[in-house]
Amino acid sequence: MTLTKTEVFTVTEIEEPAPDEDARSTQTKRLVYEHYVQPCLAELFGTTLFVFVGCASVIGNVTNTGLIQPAVAHGLALGVLITIFGQISGGHFNPVVSLSVYLCGGMELVLLVPYVLAQMLGGMIGAGLSKAMYPLDWYAAMMTLILTMVVCMGAVNSQTRSPWAPFCIGLTVTANIFAGGMVSGACMNPARAFGPAMAANQWNYHWVYWVGPTCGALLTVILIRLLFGDQKTRIVLKTKFNVLKMNEERTS
Amino acid sequence: MTLTKTEVFTVTEIEEPAPDEDARSTQTKRLVYEHYVQPCLAELFGTTLFVFVGCASVIGNVTNTGLIQPAVAHGLALGVLITIFGQISGGHFNPVVSLSVYLCGGMELVLLVPYVLAQMLGGMIGAGLSKAMYPLDWYAAMMTLILTMVVCMGAVNSQTRSPWAPFCIGLTVTANIFAGGMVSGACMNPARAFGPAMAANQWNYHWVYWVGPTCGALLTVILIRLLFGDQKTRIVLKTKFNVLKMNEERTS
Amino acid sequence: MTLTKTEVFTVTEIEEPAPDEDARSTQTKRLVYEHYVQPCLAELFGTTLFVFVGCASVIGNVTNTGLIQPAVAHGLALGVLITIFGQISGGHFNPVVSLSVYLCGGMELVLLVPYVLAQMLGGMIGAGLSKAMYPLDWYAAMMTLILTMVVCMGAVNSQTRSPWAPFCIGLTVTANIFAGGMVSGACMNPARAFGPAMAANQWNYHWVYWVGPTCGALLTVILIRLLFGDQKTRIVLKTKFNVLKMNEERTS
Amino acid sequence: MTLTKTEVFTVTEIEEPAPDEDARSTQTKRLVYEHYVQPCLAELFGTTLFVFVGCASVIGNVTNTGLIQPAVAHGLALGVLITIFGQISGGHFNPVVSLSVYLCGGMELVLLVPYVLAQMLGGMIGAGLSKAMYPLDWYAAMMTLILTMVVCMGAVNSQTRSPWAPFCIGLTVTANIFAGGMVSGACMNPARAFGPAMAANQWNYHWVYWVGPTCGALLTVILIRLLFGDQKTRIVLKTKFNVLKMNEERTS
Repeated sequence: MTLTKTEVFTVTEIEEPAPDEDARSTQTKRLVYEHYVQPCLAELFGTTLFVFVGCASVIGNVTNTGLIQPAVAHGLALGVLITIFGQISGGHFNPVVSLSVYLCGGMELVLLVPYVLAQMLGGMIGAGLSKAMYPLDWYAAMMTLILTMVVCMGAVNSQTRSPWAPFCIGLTVTANIFAGGMVSGACMNPARAFGPAMAANQWNYHWVYWVGPTCGALLTVILIRLLFGDQKTRIVLKTKFNVLKMNEERTS
Repeated sequence: MTLTKTEVFTVTEIEEPAPDEDARSTQTKRLVYEHYVQPCLAELFGTTLFVFVGCASVIGNVTNTGLIQPAVAHGLALGVLITIFGQISGGHFNPVVSLSVYLCGGMELVLLVPYVLAQMLGGMIGAGLSKAMYPLDWYAAMMTLILTMVVCMGAVNSQTRSPWAPFCIGLTVTANIFAGGMVSGACMNPARAFGPAMAANQWNYHWVYWVGPTCGALLTVILIRLLFGDQKTRIVLKTKFNVLKMNEERTS
Repeated sequence: MTLTKTEVFTVTEIEEPAPDEDARSTQTKRLVYEHYVQPCLAELFGTTLFVFVGCASVIGNVTNTGLIQPAVAHGLALGVLITIFGQISGGHFNPVVSLSVYLCGGMELVLLVPYVLAQMLGGMIGAGLSKAMYPLDWYAAMMTLILTMVVCMGAVNSQTRSPWAPFCIGLTVTANIFAGGMVSGACMNPARAFGPAMAANQWNYHWVYWVGPTCGALLTVILIRLLFGDQKTRIVLKTKFNVLKMNEERTS
Repeated sequence: MTLTKTEVFTVTEIEEPAPDEDARSTQTKRLVYEHYVQPCLAELFGTTLFVFVGCASVIGNVTNTGLIQPAVAHGLALGVLITIFGQISGGHFNPVVSLSVYLCGGMELVLLVPYVLAQMLGGMIGAGLSKAMYPLDWYAAMMTLILTMVVCMGAVNSQTRSPWAPFCIGLTVTANIFAGGMVSGACMNPARAFGPAMAANQWNYHWVYWVGPTCGALLTVILIRLLFGDQKTRIVLKTKFNVLKMNEERTS
């Protein structure tokens, strides 16, 4: 998590043209982004999603399930979000977790305060969203955002890919059904909505099952392509190809 | 996921007899099948099973369990099905998941529309079957089809084998009991039915516990041997042995 | 799964003294035991435990939990038992699973009928035991037998050791509590019983919490040392050391 | 688990200055600590936490969930605690488990009696704490102690780090919510408490959500830094650097 790797670029006395100022500056920006900014964004966004699911599972706990619904929703959402953001930020989403990890030697001091602030801000946003959205169809978009985020981060994006992706995806559906109070989870999956609609020939408001999830999926793509993707997936702050290649040649 | 591997066969200037037209054509058909047809079939069939279990868990939710029964049935069924079909198609079973995976760079454009159509068709078939079969004993066959599919794809078929097979199989039983409203899961396992029948000496309709599951198991075998198996397991569209061997010799 | 490895011993023209008749015969017996007898015993015993837990979870389902208790108990027990016996027999515990695995090319024909008979016998024994034992304290011994079997097979015995052992053990406790209708699981763990007894200073029948589990644990040890252990753990049908060593020297 | 590694130090006839008496004695103390004392402490502490969660889940089972709440709390807590302490002590937390593991050849005889005593003492402490703390806010500190212990042992401390850490952490929250009867788990996570407080602008007793968890986290850090950490994390009984380095040089 240090920036010393950039020093590789200061030794450029070989025949090849030295990487120009611009490329070096991009490379530095990229490293700062990946080591300091992206982790804080992951803590902010992960805490937002965790608190959103948590609050929703308490608000939506109208049936006679006692503690089961919130207990399982919190646990599964946390497990899944740590899996997909752990490679970026460690997946703390909790100020006292960050504190204990720092004191046990698991993170840099310089990130501690930003992490805690990001977590508090994420908690605010998540709780605010769960309150603001409650009776509306925006829930469908938010739940699909979480589901497609787990798919794209857990199974596509190479930095955060995990062998547990299949059950992460399945258990996200379980957590979301608990959180959203939706019996069938149809609002996260147009095919799950389309089948029964066809079987029963009921098409009232059927478009809702396509528009909401599509908005959620597109939002996921924007977030990953701009913020959370690795170098290959992200479309901003990539190091230009030739710099990377030179770097590799030198280290090999 | 490209067809470029077939080009290996165009360079055949060595002493060995060139693979004849027929073998080359089989090889091409096989690659087209494995790269384009089989993934769409996996999306179609996986979505069928997922929506079947999902609809059944909602139809069968007659006891006082609130959201637990459908939430857990959807989540476990999805996790298990992604595990066993993921190596073939990615295991999307959801149009907006396919959309977001494509936009994040995780699949080819040419497969996007076929996937979405396969998912919609699968949703229709799954919902239709769960409605058509409901009060009948066909449920036993369908549940056993799912269970034996998970066993044979997850533990036998080498392309899709997974170290998680033991719990995939166990959790399939959990999801199926939730979906089918069956207390004991006996209708997926003749030994589970035979033991208590023997202990209580009750043999009315006992044959049902053998016929239904056997039909489901045989259907699984047909599907795997014809459609979903890898080259070793499938009995159609195998590349003939000598072509494969030559191919290996050349690449080694 | 063939016996061809024994043929290594037929070529014995070197200076070393040929393995005597006795050692060769032991080696053959050991291979027959490990390839044919032990898998059938694993199917028999595994199906016994699975059906026992399953029947007990249905008998003991007296609280208002609908399908949850039997669904989760069946699923977890099956997942755990496949994990610990899978390396020995494949962990089918179900005649139609054996049928489909055989037809997909995953097992030898010669084992199919013995497996099905073992599963039916196991089902009978499991169901009979759950009925015979029900209101007695033998449940504690049986539940502890299952728990310690999972620990010793999943974490100690090297042939069947699994990285999932920690959660297999934890989830065995969950399945057993569901199956046995025991609120605290204390009857599988004397320390779990001793603590609250000490805190409340209640010692009536406290010895039951030590005798039952100890019997279960000792039965586990006997079964593993005699039947299910690998060569290192088993105390019978071991190949004598010098034969093994010679075998290794020749193959290296 | 033997002390023979220390003998490496008795052969010191090379030019390098022999490790002084003091360093040798520290090294011996460290090995005794890691092979005998630390495992017993892990059994003591792990049994304490397991019995605490177990008793709390029975005490707190006031809603209509039958066996689900205690069954799931016991199972998940045990699975998680075995994961994080398994590399140190094997994670038995149960006298008959230690007995069966010893008799199957999985542990040294000399540890058997200390383990059983540690487990009984741990059971007493865990049951006593769950009773003593019940209606107070100390629960928050205890629950956070468990959560941060799982994070720091499962994801930071290299000896006990596990790839399952993400779901261990998530499922710890599930077990703790079941055990503590807390709907939202907010008392383990100030960010989870801060968000809704901000959204509702309610700040009564909000400081409780910061003080309790912080105490728990600090207690975790003390326990890991003094007792359960590996050589790198622990701040006591480390072998001095030069001794370790010499040892490495000799063995390489």
